[in-house]
Amino acid sequence: MHRMDMNSDLGESFGTYVLGDDEAVLRAVSSANVACGFHAGDPQVMETTVKLCARHGVSVGAHPGHPDLQGFGRRTLACTPWEAYTNCLYQIGALRAFCDAAGVPLVHVKPHGALYNQAAKDPALAEAIARAVKDAGKGLILLGLAGSAFDRAAEAVGVPYGAEAFADRGYQADGTLVPRSQPGALIHDPQEAAARVVRMATEGKVRSVEGTEIAFRPHSICFHGDTPEAVEMALAARKALEAAGVQVCSLKEVLGL
Amino acid sequence: MHRMDMNSDLGESFGTYVLGDDEAVLRAVSSANVACGFHAGDPQVMETTVKLCARHGVSVGAHPGHPDLQGFGRRTLACTPWEAYTNCLYQIGALRAFCDAAGVPLVHVKPHGALYNQAAKDPALAEAIARAVKDAGKGLILLGLAGSAFDRAAEAVGVPYGAEAFADRGYQADGTLVPRSQPGALIHDPQEAAARVVRMATEGKVRSVEGTEIAFRPHSICFHGDTPEAVEMALAARKALEAAGVQVCSLKEVLGL
Amino acid sequence: MHRMDMNSDLGESFGTYVLGDDEAVLRAVSSANVACGFHAGDPQVMETTVKLCARHGVSVGAHPGHPDLQGFGRRTLACTPWEAYTNCLYQIGALRAFCDAAGVPLVHVKPHGALYNQAAKDPALAEAIARAVKDAGKGLILLGLAGSAFDRAAEAVGVPYGAEAFADRGYQADGTLVPRSQPGALIHDPQEAAARVVRMATEGKVRSVEGTEIAFRPHSICFHGDTPEAVEMALAARKALEAAGVQVCSLKEVLGL
Amino acid sequence: MHRMDMNSDLGESFGTYVLGDDEAVLRAVSSANVACGFHAGDPQVMETTVKLCARHGVSVGAHPGHPDLQGFGRRTLACTPWEAYTNCLYQIGALRAFCDAAGVPLVHVKPHGALYNQAAKDPALAEAIARAVKDAGKGLILLGLAGSAFDRAAEAVGVPYGAEAFADRGYQADGTLVPRSQPGALIHDPQEAAARVVRMATEGKVRSVEGTEIAFRPHSICFHGDTPEAVEMALAARKALEAAGVQVCSLKEVLGL
Repeated sequence: MHRMDMNSDLGESFGTYVLGDDEAVLRAVSSANVACGFHAGDPQVMETTVKLCARHGVSVGAHPGHPDLQGFGRRTLACTPWEAYTNCLYQIGALRAFCDAAGVPLVHVKPHGALYNQAAKDPALAEAIARAVKDAGKGLILLGLAGSAFDRAAEAVGVPYGAEAFADRGYQADGTLVPRSQPGALIHDPQEAAARVVRMATEGKVRSVEGTEIAFRPHSICFHGDTPEAVEMALAARKALEAAGVQVCSLKEVLGL
Repeated sequence: MHRMDMNSDLGESFGTYVLGDDEAVLRAVSSANVACGFHAGDPQVMETTVKLCARHGVSVGAHPGHPDLQGFGRRTLACTPWEAYTNCLYQIGALRAFCDAAGVPLVHVKPHGALYNQAAKDPALAEAIARAVKDAGKGLILLGLAGSAFDRAAEAVGVPYGAEAFADRGYQADGTLVPRSQPGALIHDPQEAAARVVRMATEGKVRSVEGTEIAFRPHSICFHGDTPEAVEMALAARKALEAAGVQVCSLKEVLGL
Repeated sequence: MHRMDMNSDLGESFGTYVLGDDEAVLRAVSSANVACGFHAGDPQVMETTVKLCARHGVSVGAHPGHPDLQGFGRRTLACTPWEAYTNCLYQIGALRAFCDAAGVPLVHVKPHGALYNQAAKDPALAEAIARAVKDAGKGLILLGLAGSAFDRAAEAVGVPYGAEAFADRGYQADGTLVPRSQPGALIHDPQEAAARVVRMATEGKVRSVEGTEIAFRPHSICFHGDTPEAVEMALAARKALEAAGVQVCSLKEVLGL
Repeated sequence: MHRMDMNSDLGESFGTYVLGDDEAVLRAVSSANVACGFHAGDPQVMETTVKLCARHGVSVGAHPGHPDLQGFGRRTLACTPWEAYTNCLYQIGALRAFCDAAGVPLVHVKPHGALYNQAAKDPALAEAIARAVKDAGKGLILLGLAGSAFDRAAEAVGVPYGAEAFADRGYQADGTLVPRSQPGALIHDPQEAAARVVRMATEGKVRSVEGTEIAFRPHSICFHGDTPEAVEMALAARKALEAAGVQVCSLKEVLGL
């Protein structure tokens, strides 16, 4: 039976500021990447979010980012491997405390925003993050961009690894994302996105922007949750996956851990 | 055989800013209260500090504070029990990740500054903190002010508890601190401080500011580490304790856990 | 002719986080209290907000708060007069730079949240803030709570002063607010609130919660802008004021400066 | 008569954290670049520093940086021209309020650390900063790296401009700094540094790392103040400049404004 994880970012509110409709997103996905207080989230939001995930039976992951609340962790920030390692360990530990208190396992770690993008292209950063995931212990899974430096870093460090794809993004023949500045970068139609995701899950293939069929079998699909349209796309994909006999389940089950 | 823990605050640097002579303090004490990034410390400082404690064989504790770097966590900040609970859980988890990575146990939790002072007088805050220590799991010990709301909160919540005294502070007949505004609040002479600490450890007694002898047997003595004089006082106390046959050891051993 | 200023808090977004419907509020009020980056707002939000005020012909004021983004400046924070003075000067200066660049005068300063509440009861804090307003120069007006320590501080320091009332709050016979915990603290009906505001402006009177008529002539009425209901109340009050022949204008005109 | 400004960074303490020996530096330089609370400094430190400058007769400038206290503003952070513009305006305004209160003019603006380095190579950033300096009004002078994008930005925007050189850095034949990774990047001998500075001031020349003489006449020389050696270098340069008949004075006088 085919399996696929569906993940989305959650718990991105801060203090008085509310962001996203977490309840809606949790009805669609199997894994949540929970902000850890550096680019979004705070201890109160984190506790609330972990409990919400528990109630919905959604698998919890840490979503460490750059220390940049104003930029929401999306601004490129120079970061040494040591800073990436320690910043990730810190945030993983902080979120795990809420998981422990709620009796919920912390399953995976997915870096956020600029930290994710920088590490995807920088082997030293990717390895530092992979090592933080490994040193945090208990079989934590690193979730990174398919076809990026994360793939190799996870292998080099020896940490369980899930590769993710984006439902709403085009892919090039080499399995990398079509840059946002180029045609074919974005897929807007929820049905088209859902169909692509089903093919990835059942056939392990995707049609590249160049028109060729490429082998592409991610462990998880990332969905945005910041707009009603994004939630709609996630719900459409889930429905299509289940209709195609794909089991939507946590990264742990997809990886058989 | 008599036992006594000696604790001091550590890891209070931040980014470029260096505070305290941690190496010197670590030669005197048996337990370190490590700042967790809210009132002082950052992920890099925390990793360095935990490793330093490991190298010196000093027991590591979390030192959670208010989110107030500018005020060094010393400014009274209105704080609900839920905020105290979640802020402490967050900081405990963050520090524990560095302990796990270094293969060092996290042994205790001592709140910092204004959070400590507010909770010492506020049963609801003290209980919220005690519950955070308990929910963080693994037998963590709460370290609080002897004769304060911490004593009762630890018992009510059912969490291992160490009561601490101050080597350089006077005590009133009821076992509470002489307010800083009153005569007898501070003890400046290292030898006098050391002698008082020895009596607490061996006889379980201290002479109150009123002149009466009172029963007073703390599990740990707090030493400041921010001036050379403070470090000198800690070293004098340690020498005096050892000369009196008192074993200076971690809170875990003092409590027989 | 009777005159009355209507003020509301504005520019409370931060980074990615959006708060309030500033455009709607600006159609109702004559003065905006613009957040200055400590409890809310950031440099980009501040520039945008000042320009928006200019476009709507609404008078700009600085709204300095405690350095507490997570608590939105609403948490009581211990604060020395020197801290209050310097924190206010800093925030006033920062906002004035955007006013200068936009060719708009900075007219008044109204402290925010906990800083406002603490100073309203603490003459030393109120005076420190009044002095910051005076030292910032150019005839800035302090806007504070009618019947509070602000009244006396402005007089003692010698700074132009506007006293504000709340449209949706009940008043006691001595001119102070009915505490929120007591009956009569809140006025929910927009028409009743509007009628009270009209009486304050035209007759200089309000009916106290005890039922007595008291003399009460504020220079400005504060309206919240964080809910559609709040905006509705402001619009109703404006309509009623104008229908009663009261000129809704900036604090400067109310004070005849 | 030849004139030269000598500048150094000041007011870099934060809260409890003390950095640098500002009193010592103020005895050597004619202009201070005062941190504005983003990468270092806070409102209390800023007020103290401005008053200290006034007491020493040292000209005050704003030293805006990235919002990155942990990285001391030295980490490259992605920054749009609008962010640079608004962040600089904010910080300039904040510092100016303390100058106004102290009755001291704010004379110049020198960006700090990574913001300085990024703008030196990025015309759009340099222009955004130059525009902030201009829009802040009152004839503020931009102080930037000689031979960088700052030179052209100041001219394009039409703002008074001072070009600075470094006493302890080598220069290439094209007037740009020898990269730190290459031989000749640093000058360690205070006497050699002083002699080079004197030639810049009196002859408008410097010997490049390639050995050629190049025309080089900066308006200000930057000195570090973070070590006793750095302060010694500044004092040696001042002595040498004065011995050579060069008047060490503020940027305003050097530029004849």
